[in-house]
Amino acid sequence: MAVMRIGHISVRVMDMEAALKHYTNVLGMRVTHTDADGNQYLKCWDEWDKYSVVLTPSDRAGMNHVAYKVEKDAELDVLKQKIKDYGFAVAELPAGTLPACGRMLQFTLPSGHEMRLFAEKECVGTDVGSIDPDPWPDSIKGAGAHWLDHCLLMCRFDPEKGVNTVVDNTKFLKEVLNFFQTEQVMVGPNGSIQLASFLSLSSKPHDLALVGAPTSGLHHLSFFLDSWHDILKAGDIMAKNRVRIDVAPTRHGLTRGETIYFFDPSGNRNETFAGLGYQAQRDRPVTTWTEENLGRSIFYHTRELTESFINVYT
Amino acid sequence: MAVMRIGHISVRVMDMEAALKHYTNVLGMRVTHTDADGNQYLKCWDEWDKYSVVLTPSDRAGMNHVAYKVEKDAELDVLKQKIKDYGFAVAELPAGTLPACGRMLQFTLPSGHEMRLFAEKECVGTDVGSIDPDPWPDSIKGAGAHWLDHCLLMCRFDPEKGVNTVVDNTKFLKEVLNFFQTEQVMVGPNGSIQLASFLSLSSKPHDLALVGAPTSGLHHLSFFLDSWHDILKAGDIMAKNRVRIDVAPTRHGLTRGETIYFFDPSGNRNETFAGLGYQAQRDRPVTTWTEENLGRSIFYHTRELTESFINVYT
Amino acid sequence: MAVMRIGHISVRVMDMEAALKHYTNVLGMRVTHTDADGNQYLKCWDEWDKYSVVLTPSDRAGMNHVAYKVEKDAELDVLKQKIKDYGFAVAELPAGTLPACGRMLQFTLPSGHEMRLFAEKECVGTDVGSIDPDPWPDSIKGAGAHWLDHCLLMCRFDPEKGVNTVVDNTKFLKEVLNFFQTEQVMVGPNGSIQLASFLSLSSKPHDLALVGAPTSGLHHLSFFLDSWHDILKAGDIMAKNRVRIDVAPTRHGLTRGETIYFFDPSGNRNETFAGLGYQAQRDRPVTTWTEENLGRSIFYHTRELTESFINVYT
Amino acid sequence: MAVMRIGHISVRVMDMEAALKHYTNVLGMRVTHTDADGNQYLKCWDEWDKYSVVLTPSDRAGMNHVAYKVEKDAELDVLKQKIKDYGFAVAELPAGTLPACGRMLQFTLPSGHEMRLFAEKECVGTDVGSIDPDPWPDSIKGAGAHWLDHCLLMCRFDPEKGVNTVVDNTKFLKEVLNFFQTEQVMVGPNGSIQLASFLSLSSKPHDLALVGAPTSGLHHLSFFLDSWHDILKAGDIMAKNRVRIDVAPTRHGLTRGETIYFFDPSGNRNETFAGLGYQAQRDRPVTTWTEENLGRSIFYHTRELTESFINVYT
Repeated sequence: MAVMRIGHISVRVMDMEAALKHYTNVLGMRVTHTDADGNQYLKCWDEWDKYSVVLTPSDRAGMNHVAYKVEKDAELDVLKQKIKDYGFAVAELPAGTLPACGRMLQFTLPSGHEMRLFAEKECVGTDVGSIDPDPWPDSIKGAGAHWLDHCLLMCRFDPEKGVNTVVDNTKFLKEVLNFFQTEQVMVGPNGSIQLASFLSLSSKPHDLALVGAPTSGLHHLSFFLDSWHDILKAGDIMAKNRVRIDVAPTRHGLTRGETIYFFDPSGNRNETFAGLGYQAQRDRPVTTWTEENLGRSIFYHTRELTESFINVYT
Repeated sequence: MAVMRIGHISVRVMDMEAALKHYTNVLGMRVTHTDADGNQYLKCWDEWDKYSVVLTPSDRAGMNHVAYKVEKDAELDVLKQKIKDYGFAVAELPAGTLPACGRMLQFTLPSGHEMRLFAEKECVGTDVGSIDPDPWPDSIKGAGAHWLDHCLLMCRFDPEKGVNTVVDNTKFLKEVLNFFQTEQVMVGPNGSIQLASFLSLSSKPHDLALVGAPTSGLHHLSFFLDSWHDILKAGDIMAKNRVRIDVAPTRHGLTRGETIYFFDPSGNRNETFAGLGYQAQRDRPVTTWTEENLGRSIFYHTRELTESFINVYT
Repeated sequence: MAVMRIGHISVRVMDMEAALKHYTNVLGMRVTHTDADGNQYLKCWDEWDKYSVVLTPSDRAGMNHVAYKVEKDAELDVLKQKIKDYGFAVAELPAGTLPACGRMLQFTLPSGHEMRLFAEKECVGTDVGSIDPDPWPDSIKGAGAHWLDHCLLMCRFDPEKGVNTVVDNTKFLKEVLNFFQTEQVMVGPNGSIQLASFLSLSSKPHDLALVGAPTSGLHHLSFFLDSWHDILKAGDIMAKNRVRIDVAPTRHGLTRGETIYFFDPSGNRNETFAGLGYQAQRDRPVTTWTEENLGRSIFYHTRELTESFINVYT
Repeated sequence: MAVMRIGHISVRVMDMEAALKHYTNVLGMRVTHTDADGNQYLKCWDEWDKYSVVLTPSDRAGMNHVAYKVEKDAELDVLKQKIKDYGFAVAELPAGTLPACGRMLQFTLPSGHEMRLFAEKECVGTDVGSIDPDPWPDSIKGAGAHWLDHCLLMCRFDPEKGVNTVVDNTKFLKEVLNFFQTEQVMVGPNGSIQLASFLSLSSKPHDLALVGAPTSGLHHLSFFLDSWHDILKAGDIMAKNRVRIDVAPTRHGLTRGETIYFFDPSGNRNETFAGLGYQAQRDRPVTTWTEENLGRSIFYHTRELTESFINVYT
């Protein structure tokens, strides 16, 4: 399996100073590189590659691109051909296009999101190192996020006009990039329309999530925490830092994850979530959520979707 | 990647009634099949295949074989050839050799353990089902183990005589079965001797663990729990059931796991452990534990190995 | 110190069958007595007296009375005199007025709530007993509430008209019943108006809470859980039982408690909360919350009061 | 009720620098005063009085005295008389004998331990303050102990010679200082000999514990943590600081507490424990542990006492 995991996400922020304060003090990331254009590169303490979040100065929020890492550089050639054969345009960006990062394949998902694939990025090691490591470093800040875990992309969805880029993205990601589906939300007549699709590359319930919406965008980028207790602590940290919280601690039906949603100062939604949930596997029966359980699939406790959660994204 | 995870383990028990009481009341498994020879087949609530533990009546404890599941039946032919090419004898057991289970490849690891590979087993679904599922079933018993997660095999190890089946097993598992190494313990002069090897097929820190010992055997079979809180509850359940506990709740250095070790009534060691630990990946730097940190690698808190933990296995 | 803790609360329910299902399946209480009028008496597993909640059939929700337990029967005579001396009318209800309960003093707080004091109630023991007890019983149902911990009374409050029964209640409870104050919310010019008052009889942050409101009523009755983990489990239990949840898991600023608010089928608000919070003591400086931190004092994470939480009570 | 809680404990240490490192880096206390004799005074972040632990330089470990705080200064006169009337010698140490501390009553328990009572100590406030406080301070170090909670005194016990200072201490503490008993361990013929006695002044399961032993001494001083999760974190902190751990995380039968025992560098045993356990009350039936459940009463999971836990104290 060539594609391994989310490698990094590049997001736009409108106030870099506030953004850096947020991603370092609240999430606990640290800056590992700053480039000449003022882009900031950050990593979590439990990540070994040089960065997983790129913050770029802009006048509006949102995602520039999301990049997934493949195991070996040679696999990029195979994947490039497979993407072409699937009928998508694909460019190759040379090594160094992003600092400390090897060549990248660049293409556009049916939903309009830019996706990239790369195989090489400078390995700087986790903050506990690889020799006789402690389970966590002394220097943990804020919520102490372990790693960027996944993102949720809002995908253009207008079933009356025959538009459903959730389905289109899913098909491509499964057939070409070897993702497998773990869960889906089916709505409409006889539950025939796929409104949401959760995809994995690993034994985690999702490495990428897709949800249908009037326009495409970034719903959230999500960071892994170890436990429900760390979710409480994360909420406390957010409160101390006066972070705008969207949804207080609760559990998802989808993935069983324990979660808090909140916003960075530019309005990009973040999630901290905890719990393995279940062991995702390619032979595990796909979980299907029905329309009448839509609220419960997202917010398992209250079983009600909130306006902001559906309509606010970047 | 063909091999996905541990499919089941077959262990010998000397008092079947006591064993069933243990695996159902303490671990929370349930019997899904009993065959004519009195073998008992059990599954955990969060597993979808028909069984993960086979208990066979015997006059001594220990493991009969451990079986790993591969994704597709056709891959068994490829794997059979690869195993042969590696120089190992491999037999093919026809479908139905084990109830509800497809054909199996059967071979012996350098350590002497019998290993099997299969691709098909009757899927009975998890106890919460696949449509609008709750995160856990109402019927949870005992510790409510989610799934059989891995096992630890004690592997013949006599470096003075040039015997190290930890290394031999590791080589085979990596080269032929596509496991990757996440952690190792290195001892001896210049840390040149691999005493322990942890291997993964997923994003979990281990799907199989190997430790050197004077004779080969089964150190423990391990079940996944969700959180450190569930470890406490599991300890309480064991106390209520007067289970013989080997090591009270603590944390491992290796894998960062939170754990309790205990024995089934026949003396087979069980583990309940919790926590994802970290995100295992093929490009994550291998963690190495040195001889002077051996105690800490196993029991992170006390940093001291106990006699029973090293010397008692089946 | 004569007054020890909340002894029971008597609340009205409109559908007894639904109410019993709620208090037993969701909170995990059990019925210990039913009287000829159809009143139901329930206890939690960790309580030793015969009941802590009395459900009375009615056509509207709300509280009939709240009763506090004093250590010795003789103290009731002293307290009766003290209450009279304070200027309040006080009646004495003979033993047996409530089943299994000794004589009760009955009086009305300035807020209009009926309060009672009693010293004797049949001791049936906790569900784990007093000889070599396990830490929790095998038979736990639902959220497994340990005990009725406190209630929050909404108290008539119209400072412009000089009405503040939060203050009036507090004065009486401190001077006559020996409660001490742990926390308060101060609003208005120079923070001179006490909007909320938390009172303790023990080392817990509150045994009774008072909040100002246009009309008096019952805001919630609250049950103790052991940990934040148990709060998550309680939320899951509520979801499974389709309980109407008011506020999903979060933390309070006041008392530091971890909490979920929800409604019984008649609309009486319940709380499950966890965590000792801090060690309340008579010499601990009183915590004061200012008006600008009102939201944060209640919902520490989001820092925003919700409409329902302020305006809905019985 | 005059006596409120443990006010401080004065313990001897043989290496002050190592001791300070331990109590600050591991437990998270901070030094609030150092006197001319080199005695160090420390407090936990959630305590409001100036200190709860006094470290005195010595050539051997152990306890100098334990002091309990009473609510009002005038009560000291009453208590002095009561102690005298009980037949014990009692001295009065003038204010300032200990820095920032009012006058103290000084007397010797039947077990030979020095006990003191005081009513006034400089209130410096908790580290979160009393106005709109966060639930925990930003500056938490190490295990972040909330407060010194209780101590366990080993009391001379030789029932064959008619010596049982557990009983003698208990009688005095109940009759004169208004402690009440929550639990006891009864051994010997017909369970007639009280080996251990747990005493409370609050709604916590113990404010002072007494256990019989060949010679009197200090078994441990204990610090409160919030949750089982914090116990894990505390164990991790101890491991990082290479603290000598006596008993890895487990649960007590007595009090239901979740615990780790460990030693300060001089060999004084410390405990961090979590969980309210249950609501102690004067009318709660006393819990009795029988001799055959002795191991289970201490270490609920393994049900076996360890040599060190019984025989090592200072």
